[in-house]
Amino acid sequence: MEIRAEAQRSGTVSSVALSKLRMSWILATYRVRAPRESLEGIAHALALEQSVELPDAAVTDAFVREHVMGRVDAICPGADDVHTVTVRLAVATTGLDVAQTLNMLFGNSALHPHVELADVAFPPDFLAAFPGPRFGLDGIRARLGVLRRPLACAALKPQGLPSARLAALCHTLAANGIDVVKDDHGLADQAYAPFAERVRACQVAVVRASRETGRTCIYAPSLVGGPRALAAQARIVRDEGEGAVLVTTALVGMPAFHELVTRDLDVPVIAHPALGGAARIAPPLLVGTLFRWLGADAAIFPSFGGRFAYDEATCAAIAHRARRPLGHWKPTLPVPAGGLTVERVADAVRFYGADTMLLIGGSLLAAPDVAARTRAFADAVARGAADAPAALANA
Amino acid sequence: MEIRAEAQRSGTVSSVALSKLRMSWILATYRVRAPRESLEGIAHALALEQSVELPDAAVTDAFVREHVMGRVDAICPGADDVHTVTVRLAVATTGLDVAQTLNMLFGNSALHPHVELADVAFPPDFLAAFPGPRFGLDGIRARLGVLRRPLACAALKPQGLPSARLAALCHTLAANGIDVVKDDHGLADQAYAPFAERVRACQVAVVRASRETGRTCIYAPSLVGGPRALAAQARIVRDEGEGAVLVTTALVGMPAFHELVTRDLDVPVIAHPALGGAARIAPPLLVGTLFRWLGADAAIFPSFGGRFAYDEATCAAIAHRARRPLGHWKPTLPVPAGGLTVERVADAVRFYGADTMLLIGGSLLAAPDVAARTRAFADAVARGAADAPAALANA
Repeated sequence: MEIRAEAQRSGTVSSVALSKLRMSWILATYRVRAPRESLEGIAHALALEQSVELPDAAVTDAFVREHVMGRVDAICPGADDVHTVTVRLAVATTGLDVAQTLNMLFGNSALHPHVELADVAFPPDFLAAFPGPRFGLDGIRARLGVLRRPLACAALKPQGLPSARLAALCHTLAANGIDVVKDDHGLADQAYAPFAERVRACQVAVVRASRETGRTCIYAPSLVGGPRALAAQARIVRDEGEGAVLVTTALVGMPAFHELVTRDLDVPVIAHPALGGAARIAPPLLVGTLFRWLGADAAIFPSFGGRFAYDEATCAAIAHRARRPLGHWKPTLPVPAGGLTVERVADAVRFYGADTMLLIGGSLLAAPDVAARTRAFADAVARGAADAPAALANA
Repeated sequence: MEIRAEAQRSGTVSSVALSKLRMSWILATYRVRAPRESLEGIAHALALEQSVELPDAAVTDAFVREHVMGRVDAICPGADDVHTVTVRLAVATTGLDVAQTLNMLFGNSALHPHVELADVAFPPDFLAAFPGPRFGLDGIRARLGVLRRPLACAALKPQGLPSARLAALCHTLAANGIDVVKDDHGLADQAYAPFAERVRACQVAVVRASRETGRTCIYAPSLVGGPRALAAQARIVRDEGEGAVLVTTALVGMPAFHELVTRDLDVPVIAHPALGGAARIAPPLLVGTLFRWLGADAAIFPSFGGRFAYDEATCAAIAHRARRPLGHWKPTLPVPAGGLTVERVADAVRFYGADTMLLIGGSLLAAPDVAARTRAFADAVARGAADAPAALANA
């Protein structure tokens, strides 16, 4: 009431608008590379850049200064001229829109090479305004009928094969113990395997394999394109009865991803990190928190020790953030990938725990006997369940 | 014909699909940080990662090896372990879709911190498949009736002000010589100035100013949100008769940007670089080439010497790429910004040439007399025209 009265006194915002205003704050934390002596000035400039985008002296309106302008919440000087700055950003500035929230978190500052977005803490009213994952970890388990052990995921590739050969590979993987067979995210709507034809053929293959084995396997086609293409692909997915989809968040854009998930899809969504993954947003924040915010039911990320450079701490933090309690949001299923092999399954399960889906792509398909290698993967996942910790020990 | 016969022999792709296949190649150039002795292996891995995403030995299909798998085109070793690698990527893999093209150019490799996307050369058939800017530099000039001098652009801010105050500011800027008044990209659909209300008020203000002065000023509202919100905002823009719009490419996502431009808008589009601008794609490629590919008629970028760190060479390269001949694509109007002041206008015009729109934001609004400062800006732009080079000397 005090805030409202003050704004009404200053005559800047109508009471109707005010009643819709959220007066809470997001805490955004940045890693800033700067000489120690200029850190305070840079921190203040960062708070202005990410809110009013004006010099302090030019912000003369009392309401804007009090309730819209970002403020420095904390400055933690670090070693080697790399420091941590936390800024308070008004929830009201986001309009509770995904694109605009990204703008407030890391719009212009993404143009500053000395700034990285390290972490974000959303207040309860912001969390409450977004549904989070609709199925989440438990929803995916329920669809598969697998309640305790880790899950096994494999990928259809390479692109360039015709639909019939991808479908045959899909059957081999499904018939030999894979829980979720996903398209490589490089499979799009290319001439050599058009989307509708490929998706139909692979779904038929996976249904046939499930009937033969008596166990459920889900096929997740990759959706990619502009908003209209995505909506059309979502209709095909619905008509064909696929059990999940793969969407590369940064390729389609985060707002389009969120809208697709919440408005056009009624199956679990697996998020892929390509393109945006290693931009200047910390991977645990991007994959573990922001993908979950956008509604990802499962999130793929490059695991340590493979062909990508994420270290153990980063991977543990991604998995922890995907699954930890956060508002009313369901946990997201972590999907470590990127160079995993059958030989490393036991270690991966010990590291990530049972509430994990392991994705092995190329190394299954490079084997002389793909079916045998796939069975070995499924067996390793089942064996791994025995000594998997209930929760991630090192998170 | 030889290609087609070969693929038919290998039995992998139908002749119908083949007839739609484009057999040309995109040249993608990456900056790679690596020890010299491992460079060749890394270059080969990069070509695989950005195409088939499989180890070489696992790519057994003859058609895929020949026409889909990426190949190293050139390796140029550099100093300090930073090298240049050019890879050939098949146009067929893109499906001529924006999202999938981004995937092929810089999907998984964006997860490798040692790799940056430095440059792209599109072949003629790829260029021909995309319309590029619909209005471009000359189309914006024609709308303003200003054929030779540099253009002056200003921004409405800060967010937090109600629509009426933003509209009053819009009138002041329009009445004192600004050609294009744009929303700050932080103005979205917030409670304190809802999109429809703000856009209507500002358009009324700009029309009134144009009537009073007898010269044309265009108001460009900022569109931001998910695809459905963008489409709704585009409808309002059409109904209200705005003369241009501002869209932040990376916030809405490049595929959504392209679809909005080509399907939903019939006015020039000014692209803003926030969020994605300083990711690991070289700024001249991102702003000068890719934004133009997506259909941006004008492109904002942080000019040297302001509060961002782009140097003169980067800025010259952005402007050059925006305007140089490229397929049938119209030139994009370069819009240097980010800390420009009235005092620096003459230098900026000498540097960028007359086919430029200078954007001064905060420093106009921080002036004690905004109207006088705005007139000084417009005068400086008009004076600058006299000694502006016809083309960018140092590009």
